[in-house]
Amino acid sequence: MVSSRDLNGDSGRIKPASAAVTQNGHSNCGAVAFVPLKEKIDKRIQARDPWFSLEFFPPRTEKGATNLVGRLDRMGEGGPLFIDVTWHPAGDPGGDKVTSSTKIAGTVLNYCGIDTMLHMTCSNQTKTTVKKNLEKTKRLGVRSILALRGDAVGNDWQYNDDGLNYGSDLVRLIRDEYDDYFTICVAGYPKGHPDSESYEEDLLHLKQKVDAGADMIITQLFFKAEEFLKFQNDCRDIGIECPIIPGIFPIQTNRSLVQLTKLSKLDVPDDVRSAIEPIKDNDEAIRNYGVHYATALCKELLESGQVLGLHMYTLNLETATISILKSLGLWLPAISRPLPWKTSGNPERQANEVVRPIFWGARPKSYIHRTQNWDEFPNGRWGDSASPAFGELKDYHLFYLRSRTANEKLLQQWGELTDEFDVWKVFSLFISGEKNDGGYKISETPWCDGLSKETEVMRDRLIMYNNLGILTINSQPNINAMSSTHPVFGWGGEGGYLFQKAYLEFFVKPEYAEALKKVLPKYEPRVNYHMINRDGEDFTNADRQTPNGVTWGIFPGKEIVQPTVVDPVSFIVWKDEAFGLWMEKWGALYDPTSTPYKIIESICDSYYLVNLVDNDFPKESILWDVLDDMLTTAGVKKE
Amino acid sequence: MVSSRDLNGDSGRIKPASAAVTQNGHSNCGAVAFVPLKEKIDKRIQARDPWFSLEFFPPRTEKGATNLVGRLDRMGEGGPLFIDVTWHPAGDPGGDKVTSSTKIAGTVLNYCGIDTMLHMTCSNQTKTTVKKNLEKTKRLGVRSILALRGDAVGNDWQYNDDGLNYGSDLVRLIRDEYDDYFTICVAGYPKGHPDSESYEEDLLHLKQKVDAGADMIITQLFFKAEEFLKFQNDCRDIGIECPIIPGIFPIQTNRSLVQLTKLSKLDVPDDVRSAIEPIKDNDEAIRNYGVHYATALCKELLESGQVLGLHMYTLNLETATISILKSLGLWLPAISRPLPWKTSGNPERQANEVVRPIFWGARPKSYIHRTQNWDEFPNGRWGDSASPAFGELKDYHLFYLRSRTANEKLLQQWGELTDEFDVWKVFSLFISGEKNDGGYKISETPWCDGLSKETEVMRDRLIMYNNLGILTINSQPNINAMSSTHPVFGWGGEGGYLFQKAYLEFFVKPEYAEALKKVLPKYEPRVNYHMINRDGEDFTNADRQTPNGVTWGIFPGKEIVQPTVVDPVSFIVWKDEAFGLWMEKWGALYDPTSTPYKIIESICDSYYLVNLVDNDFPKESILWDVLDDMLTTAGVKKE
Repeated sequence: MVSSRDLNGDSGRIKPASAAVTQNGHSNCGAVAFVPLKEKIDKRIQARDPWFSLEFFPPRTEKGATNLVGRLDRMGEGGPLFIDVTWHPAGDPGGDKVTSSTKIAGTVLNYCGIDTMLHMTCSNQTKTTVKKNLEKTKRLGVRSILALRGDAVGNDWQYNDDGLNYGSDLVRLIRDEYDDYFTICVAGYPKGHPDSESYEEDLLHLKQKVDAGADMIITQLFFKAEEFLKFQNDCRDIGIECPIIPGIFPIQTNRSLVQLTKLSKLDVPDDVRSAIEPIKDNDEAIRNYGVHYATALCKELLESGQVLGLHMYTLNLETATISILKSLGLWLPAISRPLPWKTSGNPERQANEVVRPIFWGARPKSYIHRTQNWDEFPNGRWGDSASPAFGELKDYHLFYLRSRTANEKLLQQWGELTDEFDVWKVFSLFISGEKNDGGYKISETPWCDGLSKETEVMRDRLIMYNNLGILTINSQPNINAMSSTHPVFGWGGEGGYLFQKAYLEFFVKPEYAEALKKVLPKYEPRVNYHMINRDGEDFTNADRQTPNGVTWGIFPGKEIVQPTVVDPVSFIVWKDEAFGLWMEKWGALYDPTSTPYKIIESICDSYYLVNLVDNDFPKESILWDVLDDMLTTAGVKKE
Repeated sequence: MVSSRDLNGDSGRIKPASAAVTQNGHSNCGAVAFVPLKEKIDKRIQARDPWFSLEFFPPRTEKGATNLVGRLDRMGEGGPLFIDVTWHPAGDPGGDKVTSSTKIAGTVLNYCGIDTMLHMTCSNQTKTTVKKNLEKTKRLGVRSILALRGDAVGNDWQYNDDGLNYGSDLVRLIRDEYDDYFTICVAGYPKGHPDSESYEEDLLHLKQKVDAGADMIITQLFFKAEEFLKFQNDCRDIGIECPIIPGIFPIQTNRSLVQLTKLSKLDVPDDVRSAIEPIKDNDEAIRNYGVHYATALCKELLESGQVLGLHMYTLNLETATISILKSLGLWLPAISRPLPWKTSGNPERQANEVVRPIFWGARPKSYIHRTQNWDEFPNGRWGDSASPAFGELKDYHLFYLRSRTANEKLLQQWGELTDEFDVWKVFSLFISGEKNDGGYKISETPWCDGLSKETEVMRDRLIMYNNLGILTINSQPNINAMSSTHPVFGWGGEGGYLFQKAYLEFFVKPEYAEALKKVLPKYEPRVNYHMINRDGEDFTNADRQTPNGVTWGIFPGKEIVQPTVVDPVSFIVWKDEAFGLWMEKWGALYDPTSTPYKIIESICDSYYLVNLVDNDFPKESILWDVLDDMLTTAGVKKE
């Protein structure tokens, strides 16, 4: 095998054309200006627009990390204002393991695109360590910190003359070192901190933390709405004026309830205790009760008029939390994306990244990962392919590369292959959603984690062409002046008009590629094409440096936004990733001496990857005609 | 009067946001890549696509310079491949007077947007002077030089051991110092140079010049096609392979014929002499004969198959040359502009400038002049208004500011004013093309040298609104997916789709401005507005930094091109220029104690300058409704 196939090629060597070198027709239109979490919350409060946030803890295993990222992707859809990740002293929270608190927070922010808060404790730690952790947090792009003292480990907490003894010390340190860079949150205890001498003393401690510079308070769990409301009133009475967000704990198992109330030294109210007692061994019944109880609590809080935000302790589980939020009407899948692709949550990246090549459309995490070290983002051109910059394929994000689905399940989906037609069938079944001969639904391919909604409108045609060996991995229909609030295609906010050029990307066998070369000249200049095989032999009728804008939007009072391009230079880089996936994700499921392995290997060795753009976006796409023409020329009859 | 009114304000202080600072969604799409003249000619020869070029000499007076620039603007329309400007040793050719050869060449290139060649001589000059001239030529953006020895002044030419004695010395110097930076042309003499001992010796001199590095040859005038064709063959025979372009001299007066033949020591053929003799005092008859003769000569050359380009000695006159070129079918008004605004011919500017504010649409020379010192061009945003960069108004290009039309003629057009309604009428008559009460047609206003073709489609409405005191100075209709080859709106080449948001810019009296403020909120967010008075009091519903893209194009295989924006920052700069023109160009025609002066002054002091954009480009423009609404609110009834 050549190196370009084991995801370790050196062809990933292009960097964005420097904005300092190439002049531009456009400024960073489409970029998302950074808004500190503190301001986001203030705006919601002013608008009396309720929101929720979600708390997760770092997993203990790599598999757990993989699962958590998937869960965060799903829970991100419901529109949390932010998520926060707890600090896990035993798990090397400032380290580089995929299970460390900082790593998880950075991943959620950068790859899942959700605003992220990171917990951080200070007790039993040197200032040097804490500063190192803060520096790392900053580097990851995380701009919000929940500053905590940290639980005493046993009884070994001791006052340290020179150190960080209280949450307020950490708040002060962050403010001194970073000014307003971070939004700082602190913890509040509606029933008083378990270590405090009294409720009143604890309120004063909280006041100290706020006076030291905290922007907001999230509370520990509580059972009754009046407990929170009294606490909030008491805070206001002593001059604490920042937002106070109730922490909501949906009871999910008897065990977690016992554990948490013990840790927080809280008494479980009689009504809860007596409701749980008879069902304590029935997890489902307890969860149902927990959802019901938490929903009622949240409703009471929201209806009080004194609460606008809810902070959900998810315990890393999604069902109960989503159910509560749906009942409350707070679970609102974002109706309008800022851009057609999934934006990163990293403020620097959000402010600077305005255009991406279409190729990574179904693999946004791979794109973010491979460009994570870029100081500046392209202004359209991906520049000179001779200079290094796209991250090497081998650097893949650890827990992204590792398939989320076990090999066994992938084998069930992608099957035992007897010839290349079986491979074609996998592609068509993936789109049709029908089960394969083994009775399994194909929910992903090496190139797509799932079907995009955009694909739906071309579903029937795509199934037919995939059955005939046109193995599509990316596509978009043409659209002409569609409303920017369209439920499927919408992005960029209200009042805009969206446009797309029709795009198709697929693998085809060499015979088809030859036929394609014959018919394509008929469609010039309307259709731009670029075809390339694994070894890099390529054919194109487009300029080899100039990107083709294929998605753009026109908005009131703004410059034209052009977020997606077909870029010839990065296509060469994508080619290695796309061909590499044949062997690394599919071929790797089989024994190298087996027939299926050889089928995949032969496809990878001989097929061409093709992209087609129909420039005539106001007219019906001509790309289907191109495919029909290719099939006819290759001697294939459509059914 | 305040300083902002005498075109000398210091408010012209904004510079383009640095491309190095702001990231961008687009590369320099729409920019014109520099093609050396040598390559342009090679391409025409390869394509067997005939062309012409035009020669001018520098005028002697400032008024002459003003007239010449107007003539060059008109002759540029016919599509010359380049124009060249002769070197006028007596006129301080390397100096800074508006009549100097370098100044004229720089103006044609930068302001008229025509590829320009500059003659340069070397005899009786030090290398230092020549190098200084070359450096200045480079600085102006001129990339083509016709290298000459220079005519001996009387008999004082002497061989200089250390100096530049021959054309070939100058060619060698340019090549040595500037490598391929300049396209170098040299002169050829179909009948031999007057100072040469023989035709053969002269051919060898020409060969030396080519061997020294010349890219092409333009010939001295001749009378018979066979003379040129023989000369070209003889050149080829001794190994001269570069393009040889015949110089065509249309006889325009007997005097110029006598003068030129004497200088070039050419014999006038008998048939010409005997044809002219009987009509030698009838200029018109001679010119007709000259046109007829030159047309026949050119036809013969082109039909020989051995000539593709014709270099026309215009003698700074346009009628004869245009007539000949029209007869030959070479006079072809450019059907497709590269961008909707008039591009500069300066290679650096062409390569970097891709977007302009719409405000200077009718005053492109002013815009080019005020931005002539910019090292980089905006990427959409015009940046921070606190930093200096737009050229001061007082620096205005000398012979542009000076009105091309004598004051007397302007007075006839803009008239003796008795009240502000007379001013309104000037605006409406300018658009309707009807004569004023004095019987004069109004061919220009201080803000517009002439009506653009785009205005035509809105003509009737504009006349009506101007009659009612909505004094329009700039406008564009909305267009939606119009062909890029449309005869009026087309730009950017074939196969594209063009779009515009409707735009209107006008002055209105304060009562109208008040009414406008009342009605505008009804039209949000569809309509963006910005209104400002002379003193800078302004109102807008748009972001104060963000430009609104109002003209864009979608082309096959390219990024989105967005060449025109309504930029809020540069509008503030434009405001000073727009208000300044009231007094400098209009008020200045009158005695400061006169009624007309006071009318203009009062308008300048009190009116608002307003711009309106209708963002909903696919729908019929709503801007007329806004105006109607304003008029109704102000208590005005439309007729």
